[in-house]
Amino acid sequence: MDDLQALRAIVGASNVLNGAAARPYEQDWRERYHGVSMAVVRPGSTQELAAVVRWCAQNAVPIVPQGGNTGLCGGATPDNTGRAIILSLLRLNKIRAIDTENDTMVVEAGCVLQAVQEAARNAARLFPLSLAAEGSCTIGGNLAANAGGTQVLRYGNMRELTLGLEVVTPTGDIWHGLRGLRKDNTGYSLRDLYIGSEGTLGIISAATLKLFPIPVARCTALLALDSVQAAIAMLALARAGMGASLTGFELMAGNCLQDVTRCFPQQRLPFQGVAAQAAWYALLELSDSESEEHARTRFEHVIGQAIEAEIVQDAVIAESVGQSQALWHLRESIPLAEKELGKSIKHDVSIPLARMDEFIKSTNAALQQAFPGIQHVIFGHLGDGNLHYNVAPGQGWAEGQLLAQQDAVYRLVHDSVHAVGGSISAEHGIGQLKRAVLPNYKDAVEMQLMYSIKAALDPQGIMNPGKVL
Amino acid sequence: MDDLQALRAIVGASNVLNGAAARPYEQDWRERYHGVSMAVVRPGSTQELAAVVRWCAQNAVPIVPQGGNTGLCGGATPDNTGRAIILSLLRLNKIRAIDTENDTMVVEAGCVLQAVQEAARNAARLFPLSLAAEGSCTIGGNLAANAGGTQVLRYGNMRELTLGLEVVTPTGDIWHGLRGLRKDNTGYSLRDLYIGSEGTLGIISAATLKLFPIPVARCTALLALDSVQAAIAMLALARAGMGASLTGFELMAGNCLQDVTRCFPQQRLPFQGVAAQAAWYALLELSDSESEEHARTRFEHVIGQAIEAEIVQDAVIAESVGQSQALWHLRESIPLAEKELGKSIKHDVSIPLARMDEFIKSTNAALQQAFPGIQHVIFGHLGDGNLHYNVAPGQGWAEGQLLAQQDAVYRLVHDSVHAVGGSISAEHGIGQLKRAVLPNYKDAVEMQLMYSIKAALDPQGIMNPGKVL
Repeated sequence: MDDLQALRAIVGASNVLNGAAARPYEQDWRERYHGVSMAVVRPGSTQELAAVVRWCAQNAVPIVPQGGNTGLCGGATPDNTGRAIILSLLRLNKIRAIDTENDTMVVEAGCVLQAVQEAARNAARLFPLSLAAEGSCTIGGNLAANAGGTQVLRYGNMRELTLGLEVVTPTGDIWHGLRGLRKDNTGYSLRDLYIGSEGTLGIISAATLKLFPIPVARCTALLALDSVQAAIAMLALARAGMGASLTGFELMAGNCLQDVTRCFPQQRLPFQGVAAQAAWYALLELSDSESEEHARTRFEHVIGQAIEAEIVQDAVIAESVGQSQALWHLRESIPLAEKELGKSIKHDVSIPLARMDEFIKSTNAALQQAFPGIQHVIFGHLGDGNLHYNVAPGQGWAEGQLLAQQDAVYRLVHDSVHAVGGSISAEHGIGQLKRAVLPNYKDAVEMQLMYSIKAALDPQGIMNPGKVL
Repeated sequence: MDDLQALRAIVGASNVLNGAAARPYEQDWRERYHGVSMAVVRPGSTQELAAVVRWCAQNAVPIVPQGGNTGLCGGATPDNTGRAIILSLLRLNKIRAIDTENDTMVVEAGCVLQAVQEAARNAARLFPLSLAAEGSCTIGGNLAANAGGTQVLRYGNMRELTLGLEVVTPTGDIWHGLRGLRKDNTGYSLRDLYIGSEGTLGIISAATLKLFPIPVARCTALLALDSVQAAIAMLALARAGMGASLTGFELMAGNCLQDVTRCFPQQRLPFQGVAAQAAWYALLELSDSESEEHARTRFEHVIGQAIEAEIVQDAVIAESVGQSQALWHLRESIPLAEKELGKSIKHDVSIPLARMDEFIKSTNAALQQAFPGIQHVIFGHLGDGNLHYNVAPGQGWAEGQLLAQQDAVYRLVHDSVHAVGGSISAEHGIGQLKRAVLPNYKDAVEMQLMYSIKAALDPQGIMNPGKVL
């Protein structure tokens, strides 16, 4: 029996794809990473998944797990040897249970994030993970990469939202760890080891997630600021005055929003005069569990304090859901406006807040010195210290001029991140993109511990080879 | 050079204790666990600590790390062979840094929890971990056991409060992982692997902890309830109405508080009539970031809703700090009143809320059938599903009659916990107490994964042998 026949015997003929049918799975959605697979295999249950992994283990066939294929670091794309199977989790897409008493839900890895959000909402609960790809990314991918997004400040990232896991190990055994407990101190936290391991230690097949009450009111404001230090002072004020009701704090460089309004003239900055040309903007969101009125009073109080203390230059508070959406739309349009500047180089980094200002100033200066005229596109989730510190080609640069310097730019920025104690991947993971440079920025002892764990749990090295380590 | 000489050469003669000087370290504070050590070694820096571990690794000498020695499961007590050293972290007690911009602090493992709380408060910040032993337990022990306590509902347990670690590995290498980042997706979460591993994979020497704003107001109430289901309904109402401001929700069986007022007549239940004889009580705490007035209004609103919906029988809201302390004092006196009933058997378990009522009823009934007359002492952190489900001797039982049945009682209760999907250790860990029974309640695949990790990181098995695994 040949390999494809063996796989068809496990999952059914229609769930083993090869040739042209496999192509869409062999590259990522942005078409930056390309690979070749032996086949795409789509199990329909955890048992089938485990049987596929057992077969791979017996035949030393590498496995590349894949969910919605929306990752940004090539973590779900195979290499070019054609030896690996792509293990698509998309058919494992059942919401197994929702428990409103325990405030938990059990979902399979292939569930699309948006479907999980909607199932929670239908049960009058909030599942707070929210990110740009939510219409197509899957919970399994969110877990593999420990996804972040815009609500992390209040609710944490995927790790903090997860109570239990079901995992198929590299030997094809099933760990039944779908606990719904808030407290469980019975040995090593394998849950946390698997979350963020990008499919290199096994395959997460299902998870028990935390649910929250739906906030009764939301407020949004856009603030004009003259410096990063002012934004950090504003964050401290908002934290002290809003406590856990502060659910969003996004920082944007002035030129990002000015680019948005230039590219998309139907969008406008809601400021006049000097505030329309501010060096920085912040988007604030408060979520309240009491009432519209209470939310509004509290929000205005804190922003009033900031104006009085001259921390902000000007502030606009959304008066309606439509205005709130318009403010968020400005933020969400930054990547689209960035595209108009030409192919850019993106960095997903986190920086201790105390060194954020220093990092931005010194890295901007070093980039200008090394690549005169390069354009800065800086925005991110300041509340988490997470910056999307991107650079675009200078005005009038030839196409490809920036990308030809890609490795040098990465290196300069990552060295700068490392120098201030930051992380070269805040929320996107390592995948194949940052694998080679990871040892330059990680403690050697930490790397050795990771290699030891990888060798212990996946001695054949069949789980997502060429990723992370 | 003999062993003690070698150790003295590393840490200085006065920091190697043996004979009578070592005795206090060789038993736990409750004097339930007793062992014998080669010596107690007290390094004064991470470098000295690493040198001691290197020496132990070269000489195959087992290491039992110890902090404040306040654990409840014997995790810091050596065996009886006299081969191990006790590695006391008490001299590693510096607060290395407090960063109020990043809201983090870096502390050494031997810092006493209360000293950490106070250092945070002096910087106008809250470090929220709070538990009975806080005056003598250390941060290292809190990390090793992933400590919980009374504020977990809002702030999480030790795992959620920690951003980075410094760890001495079983080979005596130092992992410099003291990151102060909210987001960092660069490989396996070794931080989470070490937290809760009870010193079996290495020794945590320092940690970067999260700080929070100090709440501006607190409200406390005691509620009388007729059932566990009513308490769970109250919890849902409080969660929905108070959001993240709900910082405490303690459940207590009626007989617990009645025992307290009988044993300590100066303490009184603030209820009359039927509410003074309620089957259950709940202690609620709200922490507010706005004002006294706002806290009070909100608190009264939610409790008013509960009375109107007949979820609670009666409610008393503390009118002063003194009254609030008196209500908490009732809760904190339960273990002292429990002692008066005779030596009891304690269980630290967690139960999914949806099965809490069923668990308590069926376990109570099964215990009465197996051990007629046994007394139930049930209280805990309901907000986390964490129950201290204790049993005391029946009235008139001979001394030792209950403890003679200890293993059978443990087994009945733990079997019952397991049957409803709960955990046999919610916040105290495994130590030596629950090590032998752990495989009865853990998935075999999960146990195998844990053994693999232990063998990979500590192949000589010198790190806290006989604990957890």
